[in-house]
Amino acid sequence: MRPDEFGRAAAEDTLAIICGGGSFPAAIAEAVVRRGRRLVMFGIRGWADPKLIERHTHHWIALGQIGRFFRLAHAERCRDVLFIGSLLRPPITQLRLDWTTIKLMPRILRAFRGGDDQLLSAVAGAMEEQGLRVIGIADAAPEITVPEGVLGRYEPSSRDRADISRALTLIATLGPFDVGQAAVIANNHVLGVEAAEGTDNLLLRIAELRLQARVTTPPGVGVLVKAPKRGQDRRFDLPAIGTQTIENAARAGLGGIAVAAGSAIIADASKVIAAADRAKIFLVGVSEDTHDG
Amino acid sequence: MRPDEFGRAAAEDTLAIICGGGSFPAAIAEAVVRRGRRLVMFGIRGWADPKLIERHTHHWIALGQIGRFFRLAHAERCRDVLFIGSLLRPPITQLRLDWTTIKLMPRILRAFRGGDDQLLSAVAGAMEEQGLRVIGIADAAPEITVPEGVLGRYEPSSRDRADISRALTLIATLGPFDVGQAAVIANNHVLGVEAAEGTDNLLLRIAELRLQARVTTPPGVGVLVKAPKRGQDRRFDLPAIGTQTIENAARAGLGGIAVAAGSAIIADASKVIAAADRAKIFLVGVSEDTHDG
Repeated sequence: MRPDEFGRAAAEDTLAIICGGGSFPAAIAEAVVRRGRRLVMFGIRGWADPKLIERHTHHWIALGQIGRFFRLAHAERCRDVLFIGSLLRPPITQLRLDWTTIKLMPRILRAFRGGDDQLLSAVAGAMEEQGLRVIGIADAAPEITVPEGVLGRYEPSSRDRADISRALTLIATLGPFDVGQAAVIANNHVLGVEAAEGTDNLLLRIAELRLQARVTTPPGVGVLVKAPKRGQDRRFDLPAIGTQTIENAARAGLGGIAVAAGSAIIADASKVIAAADRAKIFLVGVSEDTHDG
Repeated sequence: MRPDEFGRAAAEDTLAIICGGGSFPAAIAEAVVRRGRRLVMFGIRGWADPKLIERHTHHWIALGQIGRFFRLAHAERCRDVLFIGSLLRPPITQLRLDWTTIKLMPRILRAFRGGDDQLLSAVAGAMEEQGLRVIGIADAAPEITVPEGVLGRYEPSSRDRADISRALTLIATLGPFDVGQAAVIANNHVLGVEAAEGTDNLLLRIAELRLQARVTTPPGVGVLVKAPKRGQDRRFDLPAIGTQTIENAARAGLGGIAVAAGSAIIADASKVIAAADRAKIFLVGVSEDTHDG
């Protein structure tokens, strides 16, 4: 065992991945495996894709089985825990509360009122009290995050850069409301702000408003900007882009996409970049400090 | 002529109404007439409803015919000008530029980049240089705006009051971005922020997310809040509610609607209140100072 700067046995540590739904978990799990790290998948029943979970050493847990997770994670000698995939706010009927969870409920309910972000932070806090360490994707598989700079063949214009900067400021401004990982701005006009609907719905809406002539900026003008909310716990729910994001941005008539470098997930970079080139839109990783606030 | 406190002949002044589309202009024009004031309608071709325009002394103008408007307004002895109705950002092909407008273009284009609000303020500035005074609906027909207090049979709970307060803060925070006259918050979670799509689209989206179980707050929890953007020139584009807003809020499973008292339009209050009672949702006019910023 080669201890890293924290005195921990680095590569040999087993990583517990608590896995929700969506298309990114597979890419992240593969990246962790490529780095030579042992992982144990904890699929959340009802959200995680069984095909992905069963490809690895795994256990199934229900939402509300925090105690069961603790027992299994200790038995599997996991110390680091990574949350991946989406957990669209579950209806209360999907919960299976074990005793540990019930004891944590007052804390969880307080956090639930505070928004997704506070909810996850509360869960992470409880895990850390159990000797587990909750890490983020940028720690476990940094190659899965968007690098800084222009990624494809097309480049943002200076007008695009101004719109990007304004959108980063807008997203930062919305931070305290635990909302808005994405915004669409075209020629200085805010066309859309993402809340509960998700980025694809946001883009399809812009496409539709354009068909109705309610968005009249010329095609090829405007950017989708995705960045974590300011103050967001970067260990959870990072913004992500995939080929579908590219296709929907093109359908919305935008000029390109900017994402926060280092803290947005790009599951299959070469495929996504090829899609951007095909759609003739730019794709750029930007430093979050470039906003105009 | 009885001069008012500004030394003007008040009730006898002819009011020029520049009229766009939508369902509110008729109610506003009727309210002005009920007050005994002479009005001249200037219908914007392509936006204003001919049936409404032709009910009054009227002229048709195209977008971009500011010079033509000046000449007609002077000939009709109008001094006050009221903008009503929506002017969804027009495609450039709809413009008919007269010479006065062309001379004003550099100013207008600068403002155009700044957002709807700045655009209208620039046009108002140009009008004031011509001796016209641009007034708002709250000046011309205050009875058309929402009064403070609970309007229907149902009352907001203390949780609703907290959500209302948070939404007012959110809308105020978005002011500098010239966006967001409406937001939906349920149990402290921001479900939606309005940008280019308009309130009805916002509510239909929440209804759909609920069907997809992506919004899981119980039915009857959550508020739609409408308020002018902070710093908005209150002479233009006030938020408005009608029976359709009520029906869509009910469809979205919300508990009620709060609007900024005195600066949101309610075209036919008794009908709207009856619709709210039927839908079992509350409707309340709130002071904008009740936000929690």
